This record gives sequence, C-alpha cells and structure tokens, in this order.
Amino acid sequence: MGDPGDDVPEHPALADELRAELLGRGMTLATAESLTGGHLAELVSAPPGASETYVGGVVSYATRVKVTVLGVGEGTVEEHGVVSEQCAREMAEGVRTLLGSDWGVSTTGVAGPTTQEGKPVGTVFLAVAGPAGTTAQERHFEGDRAAIRAQASVTAVRLVLQQLAGGRR
Amino acid sequence: MGDPGDDVPEHPALADELRAELLGRGMTLATAESLTGGHLAELVSAPPGASETYVGGVVSYATRVKVTVLGVGEGTVEEHGVVSEQCAREMAEGVRTLLGSDWGVSTTGVAGPTTQEGKPVGTVFLAVAGPAGTTAQERHFEGDRAAIRAQASVTAVRLVLQQLAGGRR
Repeated sequence: MGDPGDDVPEHPALADELRAELLGRGMTLATAESLTGGHLAELVSAPPGASETYVGGVVSYATRVKVTVLGVGEGTVEEHGVVSEQCAREMAEGVRTLLGSDWGVSTTGVAGPTTQEGKPVGTVFLAVAGPAGTTAQERHFEGDRAAIRAQASVTAVRLVLQQLAGGRR
Repeated sequence: MGDPGDDVPEHPALADELRAELLGRGMTLATAESLTGGHLAELVSAPPGASETYVGGVVSYATRVKVTVLGVGEGTVEEHGVVSEQCAREMAEGVRTLLGSDWGVSTTGVAGPTTQEGKPVGTVFLAVAGPAGTTAQERHFEGDRAAIRAQASVTAVRLVLQQLAGGRR
C-alpha cells in the first residue's frame, strides 16, 4: 500500500489493477480532465506497459477547450456550468469518441482555493462512458488543492474498475 | 526548494515562476505529452490560479492520437518515428493550434522499462512552439520510469521559461 508518507498510498496498486483489468478484456481507456489537470492521466499511465491499455487524454482546463476539443455543448455550459454532472458526462463521452477508446473517464470540479460557479471547494463530478452507456457521480472531497485533485483521480480510477466489473464492486 | 525526499524538489517553485512569467505577458500555454503521460500538465496546473495561464493539453500516449488529434504527419511517424525531434516539433505546434494558446510545449521519448524505436531508455525530445517559431532539444535522462518522466517535465517547463525570456536564460 506504499509508504505512509505518500499522499495517496494506493495509487500504484490501483493503476496496476486498472491496467490488468483492461488488458484482460482487450480494452482501452482515455481520460478527460478538468480539475485534476493531468493527475489522472499521470496515474493511469504510470505502470510499465500502460500504453497497451491507455491511449491518452485531454486536459481541458479552459472552458473553451471542453467545448472545442471535447465537444461539450455550449448549452450545457450555459445551463449547467462546467462543474456539473452533465458536463462530466459529455467530457467522458467526448474523449471516448475523439480518441477512439472503449472507455472514457472524466473529472470536473472545484480544486480551490476559491469557489467556482457557486459550488464549494471539493465539489467534483466524475463520469465513465463505455460500451453500455455513461454513468456519473457527484462527490465532495476534503483537503487542500493537491489532496482534492488526488482524491478525484483515485475515485475516477475506481469508477472505471466498478464499470469494468459490471457495477458489482 | 522543498523537502529532500521529493522526487524533483523544485517542482512547485518552477510552476509558480512559469505562471507568473506568462501572466506578466498576458500569455497562455498548452501541453502535448507522450512519455510524461500527464505529469507535465499536472505540474503546470498545480499552482492556484493556473487556469489564468494554462488552457490545457493533450496526452497523446498512442501514436494514433498524435496523428489524429495533434496533427503529427503520418510521414513524420514513418520517416522519423515518434521518438524524434520532428515529432516533438509537430506535437508542440499542433497543440498550440488546437487549443489556441500563445505557446505549446511537448515531450516525446522513452520512459522505459524497454527501448523504443531502437532509442535507449531516457532519450527525450522536447519542443516549444511560440509566436516566433519552434525550438527543440534532445536530452538523455538517467533513472527509473518515474524519474525520467519527472526530469522531462521539469526540463519542458525550463524550456518554456527560456523561450519567454528570449533565449537569454
């Protein structure tokens, strides 16, 4: 489980597990990130051999990138904001289509230090798009900017693992 | 300079410096990564307020993503390979165009554990595309997969800082 000093001790084991579960099914994953800013991609691409199952991702930090690159609807941004379940769903579906992967996973939320769109720091929406459709979750994490980003990334990986297991985990 | 136990102690200070230098010029940055797998994006997006200067990036882990999303030429891949200066240049230019930023920075190389395209582990090509053109560098880093990724990311940030300073640093 890693050293006690690690921010998120179970990182490497989780990424290895994700790689093994995808590889066993001959499936690939892509990531679409906002608040995690590349942390999720780094986590997923860390294990040796990650390129067999991880095709890549988009860090859509600016709202414009969510719309122009990932295909999030302008109407979604106006109606729901970027810190929303609907935006998370469209990011996951968009990156799955753009990168041609079996699965797409997304994170959008408020890492802090200030609130965004009236949502408190720690509010995170995650979505997983796969062959059978898209699922999403709203979560609220505690801690500083780095801790919130790390928890969001780990939760995103766990969500993909749950979906790979057919929602049985 | 951080704790002695950090992998790359100067990470946060460098990212803060990059943010300040971009902000002072009213300029934005985008990242295009291969071997660093999101580590560079995470580094650049870590400081509070990063969204003022960092628009986002593409993690083009699979070769196909380099071509279809970033616009790296099929001929470049065939003639030079993806671990090449030419590929790094086209990644940096591609992400700058795709995301509409003032600057684009890229990393491509061999993080290990095995060689790629006949290039030894630790071989890394980096490029910075900006208003006055594109510059590139070949570097050779020592260490394990995580250490090579970290050194590549830090070097990429330093390259952007050098270009911002007009090549005088």
